[in-house]
Amino acid sequence: MSAAPITIALLGGGTVGSEVARLLVHDAEDFHKRIGAPVRLAAVAVRDTAKTRPGIEASLITDDAAAVAASGADIVVELMGGIEPARTLILSAMAAGSSVVTANKALIAEHGAALAALAEAKGVSLLFEAAVMGGVPAVKTVREALVGDEIRSLSGILNGTCNYILTEMETTGSAFSDVLAEAQRLGYAEADPTMDVGGFDAAHKITILAALAFGGSPNFAAAEVEGITGVDLLDIRLAGDLGYRIKLIASAERAGEGARVQVRPFLVRKTHPIAQADGALNALFIEGDRIGRIFLQGPGAGAGPTAAAVAADIADVMAGARRPVFQAPAASLQPCAPSAGTAAVGRGYIRVMVRDEPGVLASVSEELAEAGVSIESFLQKPPGETPGVPIVMTTHAVAEAVLAAAVDRIGRLPAVLEPPRLLHIASI
Amino acid sequence: MSAAPITIALLGGGTVGSEVARLLVHDAEDFHKRIGAPVRLAAVAVRDTAKTRPGIEASLITDDAAAVAASGADIVVELMGGIEPARTLILSAMAAGSSVVTANKALIAEHGAALAALAEAKGVSLLFEAAVMGGVPAVKTVREALVGDEIRSLSGILNGTCNYILTEMETTGSAFSDVLAEAQRLGYAEADPTMDVGGFDAAHKITILAALAFGGSPNFAAAEVEGITGVDLLDIRLAGDLGYRIKLIASAERAGEGARVQVRPFLVRKTHPIAQADGALNALFIEGDRIGRIFLQGPGAGAGPTAAAVAADIADVMAGARRPVFQAPAASLQPCAPSAGTAAVGRGYIRVMVRDEPGVLASVSEELAEAGVSIESFLQKPPGETPGVPIVMTTHAVAEAVLAAAVDRIGRLPAVLEPPRLLHIASI
Repeated sequence: MSAAPITIALLGGGTVGSEVARLLVHDAEDFHKRIGAPVRLAAVAVRDTAKTRPGIEASLITDDAAAVAASGADIVVELMGGIEPARTLILSAMAAGSSVVTANKALIAEHGAALAALAEAKGVSLLFEAAVMGGVPAVKTVREALVGDEIRSLSGILNGTCNYILTEMETTGSAFSDVLAEAQRLGYAEADPTMDVGGFDAAHKITILAALAFGGSPNFAAAEVEGITGVDLLDIRLAGDLGYRIKLIASAERAGEGARVQVRPFLVRKTHPIAQADGALNALFIEGDRIGRIFLQGPGAGAGPTAAAVAADIADVMAGARRPVFQAPAASLQPCAPSAGTAAVGRGYIRVMVRDEPGVLASVSEELAEAGVSIESFLQKPPGETPGVPIVMTTHAVAEAVLAAAVDRIGRLPAVLEPPRLLHIASI
Repeated sequence: MSAAPITIALLGGGTVGSEVARLLVHDAEDFHKRIGAPVRLAAVAVRDTAKTRPGIEASLITDDAAAVAASGADIVVELMGGIEPARTLILSAMAAGSSVVTANKALIAEHGAALAALAEAKGVSLLFEAAVMGGVPAVKTVREALVGDEIRSLSGILNGTCNYILTEMETTGSAFSDVLAEAQRLGYAEADPTMDVGGFDAAHKITILAALAFGGSPNFAAAEVEGITGVDLLDIRLAGDLGYRIKLIASAERAGEGARVQVRPFLVRKTHPIAQADGALNALFIEGDRIGRIFLQGPGAGAGPTAAAVAADIADVMAGARRPVFQAPAASLQPCAPSAGTAAVGRGYIRVMVRDEPGVLASVSEELAEAGVSIESFLQKPPGETPGVPIVMTTHAVAEAVLAAAVDRIGRLPAVLEPPRLLHIASI
């Protein structure tokens, strides 16, 4: 084991960057002992050099990110986020022969194939454990621990902000917009919350895991994404009455030779471990042919967990393992997508607001029967504060297109007061 | 990435060995793609060559384990279990320059330091993911994913047989001996169940994880081990009334510069994820300074999960990562143990069977008060099928020695009918 110091350059000196810098300085001896080589923090590129950054030596700080990226450090750690300038800087770092460690899920999900191709051409590593589930080793588990298995499906809670909002809605009985405003006040949600509540952040993460699990390049464009802005408190309550919680589930499952990737509010049985991951927790449920069902849970964000994940990647680069960035050489990768003609099948939750009059239930059930949708359970609540009466059905598994068409037909019945709400029930 | 085939020799052709052999043959192409080099199964050493082993080419099978071990294969996979001859064969394999992958928890827990020293001297890998929690990457997570963190504690359910028995006792209301007999009939428990129900198997596993987490060599001799043979159905019921489940918990926590390792039946709050891991499931709860709390769960045994873990290790050897076997060079390792003078502190559950007469409760509480043990909750059940009346207390945190002394004093009271039962309450 070599004693030459490994040089590390940081792009980004925010909360995560500062924690990584502290870790590399404060735990240097530990790191050395565990990996067999010393590390040396060489530079930290920041936007505002005037800001004090406790724990980072002032002489290392610069605002010339391009120079830091191209400095030829052994490892360049990118913690800026967003597509540009991160993408250009990472390409320049790899061109200069540096391995790259990043927490940038958007970049890997949207440009992973091109980055992997350059990494492999230059013989450097490109690692991104911190992009998914913070300190929980989701990427490592899917890429390394399950290399001898065929993964069947991944389902997870990958966005802590959405999970916090849904948990608060359920426990406090407040509407989405009120909980979001409170979360923004507390700093749990961004001023522009679209990436989180629109489902895009979770979609970036599941896109990355799907590529690793099913052997393709990340294909964010093929992800079906629905966020939580349309989740109604009434549905959280009614789903609860039926024994379910509503969770924003990011899932990827085999579909023919490829995989289907989606992010959606799903009903999950209250007894399932994923339903019990509350607040800002992240959770991931992995099903494989050999391993059976594995469940991982932990904080999915925060400076500490993210820095620990970055450190794990730095250690992996130092340990010298060589694997394809995704599960095969980049040149051979196809974008991960469902095979053509694979029909999505699932169970549905349908909530219809109807006028409280005789015969309505019969006409709704007739429409479902005619469409070929079979009802599994049924719930009618007494008239309450809402206009009309909610009737709720869960269905047996049926082609999603058939289910959507049936719901569309129900919506056109005269006694139905507003478009019915269709949610999907998780198959886990 | 080299195209020279990696040769693999198996020691052991039982259910796990056969599954590994099938995996290496059947998934060879996948493996090749993911790792960048082909694998070739070179030999399988078995006890009984006459037995048919579907999926393993007959010409590979031999009963000369010593020759297979010393054959100089790139990787020797040991799946025989037990200390000897596994130990001698592994030493011989490493001496011949082979990397070793093993599922042998007893061997790593009891002889890990010597094996690690030889592995490092010969420059070969020694990996044992399959020794703990089957296909759940517990070893990888502690060794690699948490390399940039300080682990505070590990608590887990690491023996599926014990967890199955305790779950069955709780759900069916049957006594330990009846459930054990049924488990043996079904093949879930061995004819000699001592390794499992005595807590030794779980102790081997937590000993390995503790060495990785706290930076020492495995020190099985220092583990405090109590199995489940003394767990009484009455305590499962009473703990349930208080909001707890009784689980065989294997734990390791920092104690001074070292760590304390124990396996014991613990009371765990029903709402904790570990309490909800039922049946043959394994679960592990990791607390770290940076990562916070991570939870892993999955099947901890079986041919499929174990073979997947072995495959992950084979892939790691092929990927060429070089790390110390434990978290530092073997020569520098001290056996993992608590620092001298670190007092164990915890909360207790005390069940006392008393004569149903006035003043008994007062005398019991007086003894506790005099010993300096403070009661947190108290439960007295009406007289039932047992002789005497059970009174149950949970205590606030107190030095374990103080708690044990107090229980001893209570046992000597005239109205107390049998030695009180003391169980510990998990601090997770």
